[in-house]
Amino acid sequence: MQELKDTQNELDDRNLAIDRVGVKALRFPLEVREKDGTTQRTVATTALAVDLPHHFKGTHMSRFVEVLNSHGNCLDVREMQKLPAELLGRLDASKAHVEFKFPFFRSKPAPVTGKAGVMDYEVIFEVEAGKDGSHDFILTVMVPVATLCPCSKAISERGAHNQRGVVTYSVRFNEPIWIEDLIDLVEKSASCELYSLLKRPDEKEVTERAYDNPVFVEDLVRNVAARSNAQDNITWYKVEAENFESIHNHNAYAVIEKPL
Amino acid sequence: MQELKDTQNELDDRNLAIDRVGVKALRFPLEVREKDGTTQRTVATTALAVDLPHHFKGTHMSRFVEVLNSHGNCLDVREMQKLPAELLGRLDASKAHVEFKFPFFRSKPAPVTGKAGVMDYEVIFEVEAGKDGSHDFILTVMVPVATLCPCSKAISERGAHNQRGVVTYSVRFNEPIWIEDLIDLVEKSASCELYSLLKRPDEKEVTERAYDNPVFVEDLVRNVAARSNAQDNITWYKVEAENFESIHNHNAYAVIEKPL
Amino acid sequence: MQELKDTQNELDDRNLAIDRVGVKALRFPLEVREKDGTTQRTVATTALAVDLPHHFKGTHMSRFVEVLNSHGNCLDVREMQKLPAELLGRLDASKAHVEFKFPFFRSKPAPVTGKAGVMDYEVIFEVEAGKDGSHDFILTVMVPVATLCPCSKAISERGAHNQRGVVTYSVRFNEPIWIEDLIDLVEKSASCELYSLLKRPDEKEVTERAYDNPVFVEDLVRNVAARSNAQDNITWYKVEAENFESIHNHNAYAVIEKPL
Amino acid sequence: MQELKDTQNELDDRNLAIDRVGVKALRFPLEVREKDGTTQRTVATTALAVDLPHHFKGTHMSRFVEVLNSHGNCLDVREMQKLPAELLGRLDASKAHVEFKFPFFRSKPAPVTGKAGVMDYEVIFEVEAGKDGSHDFILTVMVPVATLCPCSKAISERGAHNQRGVVTYSVRFNEPIWIEDLIDLVEKSASCELYSLLKRPDEKEVTERAYDNPVFVEDLVRNVAARSNAQDNITWYKVEAENFESIHNHNAYAVIEKPL
Repeated sequence: MQELKDTQNELDDRNLAIDRVGVKALRFPLEVREKDGTTQRTVATTALAVDLPHHFKGTHMSRFVEVLNSHGNCLDVREMQKLPAELLGRLDASKAHVEFKFPFFRSKPAPVTGKAGVMDYEVIFEVEAGKDGSHDFILTVMVPVATLCPCSKAISERGAHNQRGVVTYSVRFNEPIWIEDLIDLVEKSASCELYSLLKRPDEKEVTERAYDNPVFVEDLVRNVAARSNAQDNITWYKVEAENFESIHNHNAYAVIEKPL
Repeated sequence: MQELKDTQNELDDRNLAIDRVGVKALRFPLEVREKDGTTQRTVATTALAVDLPHHFKGTHMSRFVEVLNSHGNCLDVREMQKLPAELLGRLDASKAHVEFKFPFFRSKPAPVTGKAGVMDYEVIFEVEAGKDGSHDFILTVMVPVATLCPCSKAISERGAHNQRGVVTYSVRFNEPIWIEDLIDLVEKSASCELYSLLKRPDEKEVTERAYDNPVFVEDLVRNVAARSNAQDNITWYKVEAENFESIHNHNAYAVIEKPL
Repeated sequence: MQELKDTQNELDDRNLAIDRVGVKALRFPLEVREKDGTTQRTVATTALAVDLPHHFKGTHMSRFVEVLNSHGNCLDVREMQKLPAELLGRLDASKAHVEFKFPFFRSKPAPVTGKAGVMDYEVIFEVEAGKDGSHDFILTVMVPVATLCPCSKAISERGAHNQRGVVTYSVRFNEPIWIEDLIDLVEKSASCELYSLLKRPDEKEVTERAYDNPVFVEDLVRNVAARSNAQDNITWYKVEAENFESIHNHNAYAVIEKPL
Repeated sequence: MQELKDTQNELDDRNLAIDRVGVKALRFPLEVREKDGTTQRTVATTALAVDLPHHFKGTHMSRFVEVLNSHGNCLDVREMQKLPAELLGRLDASKAHVEFKFPFFRSKPAPVTGKAGVMDYEVIFEVEAGKDGSHDFILTVMVPVATLCPCSKAISERGAHNQRGVVTYSVRFNEPIWIEDLIDLVEKSASCELYSLLKRPDEKEVTERAYDNPVFVEDLVRNVAARSNAQDNITWYKVEAENFESIHNHNAYAVIEKPL
């Protein structure tokens, strides 16, 4: 095979380092460990990147895909966390960043009949590693919930507007933490959690539970923040809630971030 | 200027006519007449297409854009309706199809305080014309509404789950019809219509109104269908409702289409 | 447990049958058989619906989820195809419709170096069953491809604009057909197929192959249509191609549908 | 009218201030001044928020909409920039943040024939104001461009893969800056700019121009960064480029941010 020109390796004289360069929107099968010891298979949308010193014209894009592929056709989430370190070596970089976003499924019994349903959540893993040994991990869960408006309940003679909302909850932590525990923490902070399967006695229960636990979008993020503050293993968090208001065509939202 | 080869005009021998060929996802400013005689400016996402006889290799894509541009930098919606006929001539086609989708705004007073807010809807115009003089027009409005669950209300001691839903309502008609009238028809068919601005007395009113008018997704499409059947000027309709259930992470939906 | 009112079972006097009512946007793990005999796990977004006679007020939404759940936490695609028949019985309907959309992965060697990469496609299964024994199945693959413009190549002294496009190809068939074969059929119809991993000798090969095989969006749908016509097992097809033109901010598209 | 309970004004004892609370995904007509002195009307998707001290239970969501509405049915972009200061007063907050995202249209002549077409871009205005007199403004343009791969050109005997990409370019500045100038700066940094209308002589020109100006995604962000560094009025920037690779089903991306 003839020698093909390596344009990427050429010198660049613009004197501009690049913070992050890589691939995005690449889908790949992923295997995730559950808290109960079993594993589930899902599908991730990934991004992999490194920094690029000012003197190189380009990175080698195919190596990102090679590193991703090197663990087989379905990536174990524990292997996934090693990718940034592997990218550092393979691409001669000083920083590497990897992001995986995927649906995560949990079997959840209906609250009264106990009938099992499967709920889906979005989960994001962001892992960064530096040549200097630095390491960062942010775990995000996106949890759909029900919120019932305290104001609407207080001022109305009957009923209260309620709606689906979604809580995007990101944490850094100093000892291993389970996706399931983060989801639980959020679901307890809303008017009511969601279920995929509800028979009539269950529907009665969740309707009344939501009515008895009204929360503003402000309450929702504060509830999550307060619970996070009470946990020693969570060293940083950011919580955003967005309610798809049933009385408006726009959304209400609130954000609290704990300073690093 | 040298003569450039016209690849599109070459003969094609695969003997395969093309049903529709053209451009898509092209954005263009649009001016829409309101019922009260004023006009509003908005932004449309458009698609323009013609059929292509089997003996031509390709259509001339730039002519679609030329026809669109020929009415100035902001297209009047009445001009828009002439586009298919213009495409027939310009592209020597036997059928032409044009689609414009755009947000449509209405000022709407809050129900008790009367404070004005601006609500947004999605509207779609689909116009088709044939060389044989045939003509077709489908007008679609996408109306966000509130729905309150009759079952949840009937079985619960307090409250009832409710949520935002969206009704996609398409009609053919035999005399001019206003976007505003179609929106009204849908909003009357839900548990409650939506507002962009609600003060506390308004919020009390819409909460109680929704509670007093529970509708399933099935009721919603039937209400719209029944009102459509009662109007002589509507010759065909299709109505789909989708509720973003506040107790589930999935949606409920229902569809009724009147046969042509 | 007290008897809870069954609002859905109440009589409805609007005399309006509903064409389709059910659940939408529900995600569920899916297991798909591959042509080589192995299986892959993926994640589907599903919709399940039935028709509703005019005399019932509502359907029973939870039963859709129960039928979906009754096959375990991960649904085999062969079980999936039985769902409509099961819905007919469980919901006392005369028609049932089920739709599953999911990413499908294939390992594909780079064309010169043979290095393996994993490509992703979108696949849709639509299955309908009637109480009268009628049955319908539409299989759709969405295949991303490269297209190089024949006109641009013909008129330019060097280069030719090319871009990513996506072909949405739906078929009905009279004997079993593999997802992989439909993908192959589409990929052969474009200027070049896509790969997730390409080293420099591979990139040279796909660049030159695309340059040597220019296709308009019209050629692309015709190539797929011609190949479909040549296969006896395909009884109906619809093929749409959309090119994300690299010279415009809008797309070119074309559609051919074989009449039933 | 009876006195309705003001739940939002109640005391909160969780001792948790909220960083940002408000409304999101609210659409509103917007009027934007162009560089040539004329104005164009478009449609914005907005978010408005304030911070909330720890001792209040909730903000007053309707006031955000009232402030938005107080300037009439179509907001002038210069009025838009006053909204944060108005929110500070109306909601008794110490920080207010406003975001408007909208399509922006420019008439652009084809490069050879001079035929006029209308190109669309996405623009984002983010304005923040503090009770302490602080002020921040970030202007973002999202510019679609064509990129032709230098590696593919260097190693291939004919052709070179190219594709549409999008550059997201955000700046802070110390004297007024025009949207048009930011767009120009980005378009000059790519292999070729995009047009909505191109006749054959134009298509020849853009094909050859792109072939003569190959850029990696790395080159693209560096070109934008270098041009930004050369302009005294730009005090900060962040530039991200994402290429929808025509040889892959994933994207290439790169980011450079100038430290504040």
